[in-house]
Amino acid sequence: MAQKKIVVQKYGGTSVGTSEKIQNVAGRIKGYVDRGYSVVVVVSAMGKTTDQLVALSREITANPSSREMDMLLSTGEQVSISLLAMALHEIGIDAISYTGSQIRVITDGNFSNAKIESISTDRIKQSLDGNKVVIVAGFQGIDADENITTLGRGGSDTSAVALAAVLGTRDCEIYTDVDGVFTADPRLVQNTMKLKEISYEEMLELARLGAGVLHSRSVEFSKKYNIRLHVRSSYNNEPGTIVMPKEEMMEKFVISGVTSKMDEAKITIRDIPDRPGVAARLFGLLGEHKIYVNMIIQSTGRDNKASISFTVMKNNLAKAVELCNGLMEELGASAIDTKEDIAIVSAVGVGMISSYGVAGKIFNVLSEHGINIEMISTSEIGISCVIDGMYAELAVKVIHKEFLEGDKYVC
Amino acid sequence: MAQKKIVVQKYGGTSVGTSEKIQNVAGRIKGYVDRGYSVVVVVSAMGKTTDQLVALSREITANPSSREMDMLLSTGEQVSISLLAMALHEIGIDAISYTGSQIRVITDGNFSNAKIESISTDRIKQSLDGNKVVIVAGFQGIDADENITTLGRGGSDTSAVALAAVLGTRDCEIYTDVDGVFTADPRLVQNTMKLKEISYEEMLELARLGAGVLHSRSVEFSKKYNIRLHVRSSYNNEPGTIVMPKEEMMEKFVISGVTSKMDEAKITIRDIPDRPGVAARLFGLLGEHKIYVNMIIQSTGRDNKASISFTVMKNNLAKAVELCNGLMEELGASAIDTKEDIAIVSAVGVGMISSYGVAGKIFNVLSEHGINIEMISTSEIGISCVIDGMYAELAVKVIHKEFLEGDKYVC
Repeated sequence: MAQKKIVVQKYGGTSVGTSEKIQNVAGRIKGYVDRGYSVVVVVSAMGKTTDQLVALSREITANPSSREMDMLLSTGEQVSISLLAMALHEIGIDAISYTGSQIRVITDGNFSNAKIESISTDRIKQSLDGNKVVIVAGFQGIDADENITTLGRGGSDTSAVALAAVLGTRDCEIYTDVDGVFTADPRLVQNTMKLKEISYEEMLELARLGAGVLHSRSVEFSKKYNIRLHVRSSYNNEPGTIVMPKEEMMEKFVISGVTSKMDEAKITIRDIPDRPGVAARLFGLLGEHKIYVNMIIQSTGRDNKASISFTVMKNNLAKAVELCNGLMEELGASAIDTKEDIAIVSAVGVGMISSYGVAGKIFNVLSEHGINIEMISTSEIGISCVIDGMYAELAVKVIHKEFLEGDKYVC
Repeated sequence: MAQKKIVVQKYGGTSVGTSEKIQNVAGRIKGYVDRGYSVVVVVSAMGKTTDQLVALSREITANPSSREMDMLLSTGEQVSISLLAMALHEIGIDAISYTGSQIRVITDGNFSNAKIESISTDRIKQSLDGNKVVIVAGFQGIDADENITTLGRGGSDTSAVALAAVLGTRDCEIYTDVDGVFTADPRLVQNTMKLKEISYEEMLELARLGAGVLHSRSVEFSKKYNIRLHVRSSYNNEPGTIVMPKEEMMEKFVISGVTSKMDEAKITIRDIPDRPGVAARLFGLLGEHKIYVNMIIQSTGRDNKASISFTVMKNNLAKAVELCNGLMEELGASAIDTKEDIAIVSAVGVGMISSYGVAGKIFNVLSEHGINIEMISTSEIGISCVIDGMYAELAVKVIHKEFLEGDKYVC
């Protein structure tokens, strides 16, 4: 008997939010079974289940133990997998559900943000050989002592990719409530396009910039194991966006996505005598206190004094300022300014590497519309600018129009 | 270090029905910890959780696979154990929760009604030695292939008793929403008494007769392993009822409980030529179709013809009548009668064995109140009478008054 082709499918919480939606998912899976696929399905918790469980725990404690939180939250996926198995049985498809524990999804012991170390394929393969659809609880595993662990936000995507990897298939479909990855947020920009393809690197950059349909770890995993991640809607049959190695992409845009995020604030420390070790001291201290610093610029001004500006998450701003204040004397700095109403607008694209003048075009188009750039940072595949918050939407629109509407910049 | 005394406590669904109730339970457990006990806690699913999960499955299928149903329902207890652990942490008590899988509650593979075969005490003892309260998900286990199984109705009681047995303690407390075991249903009879003690045998008979605070299997287990089951309220600190070996009881009543149940119906097959094998043929056939027959009487009438009357659960009546109709010709019987409006009124007590005339007193008191007895069955510790349904409440009241009010019959 010829080995059947294995496809791994992941359905997010909104896709299995009600019993009717679960039945729809079952119908979609049946289509693949009828076409001769071996189907492995990863499901998230139904709709708002996780939020409800969190709320329940909050009624009892503000500081739940992370082990017990994982014990609690992992029930959400266990409910979904059993209901989906029942829905498949109901339409005549043989199926069996497994918890993370049952297929030995072994993780490290880092509760609430665990990393998958291995998965046993024995039971899965045995069930697939028995022509069963295999349904796996996403987001969860167990550590070496069989404590239940969860994988953190977006963990079910990572479960799906890891399963594709251990089962030796490149086909992993991520069903969600959007049609794929767009060149910008469709709620913000009218003429957005759905991308047919996007590279792992661009997807990672978009995730980092807050425009993530997918969570970073699942994309990193896909890149490492060369999985083609097909992000698509569970509400229709349109093809979505395939996240793949850039070498395999048929059509590459110079810029494939424009994003903005408003959740960071800017801190500027002025007039620091310019001597070695200042930045190390400052950012070392912030790091010790687990404050994530995103963009950093250092400029040398008059009298050999420097200014350092950087961005932190808004909810870390007070703490960061407190730490900086404690350093003022030691650094010899004169003042600290903060600005909360900023936006970080970014353009991401693998084509930037090979296309000259992209940065210049972006600065130009912003300037033409009277938008002042306060900070700039660049990477191989992205350019981010800090601007005044009030211009966030305009900036995205004009960059998108320049690169992705009308005559598109194809590289 | 002297070994601490281990107590096993089980809290039912109503006792952990809200986060506030879970906090109350945590407070009660703290009291035991403060008094130097090692506490092992078994909890059920919160309040109506199990019903809600069943309703969810019904939206998807009328005939859920029992494996998937157990996968679904076992999440209820997993939620409770994690929340109770958090509530204990919140008041400074170290605690850890375990699923059935994590402490290897190994059962047979009989989904939805599995029997416990073994429990590993390694992790529990290790946690108790570390001065942790151990919280175990009741009602659930795993079979030899690690499929999740549930123990059926009242399964958490059985989990608690089994834990007491493997941990070598006789102390098992069953916390519930009633104060203990009463001599009759307090909603029916005014002057009921809470029993201080009751024997395993009486408790089993009461469970069989539908008056069960406890499910039969947990009582059988307790009897087998000599566990003293303390049934008490989670809402106060009053002592409840201790289920124990009858040899250890301090005070024995001739009759310790009076019950009635209305969920059976009577079938009478008339004028069967009296020859060997008739009963075997009839009840063999009903048994093959899994129809549970409770009371049976056979009477010989005129012309050497017999009548057989028996009771079945009302929801099996139609099927039973259909099967009997198919036998009419073979048996040579003349007619089948059915009666749905019946009650089975029972008196249960270990004292019956040693007290003469108990049956006579019961028949007498029923007759004095104009209640006709249609069928009678007796066991070592119980007498049951089938009467017209309209007299159910009256019959319980008058038997209760005769034996359990005023001058009580003590043996």
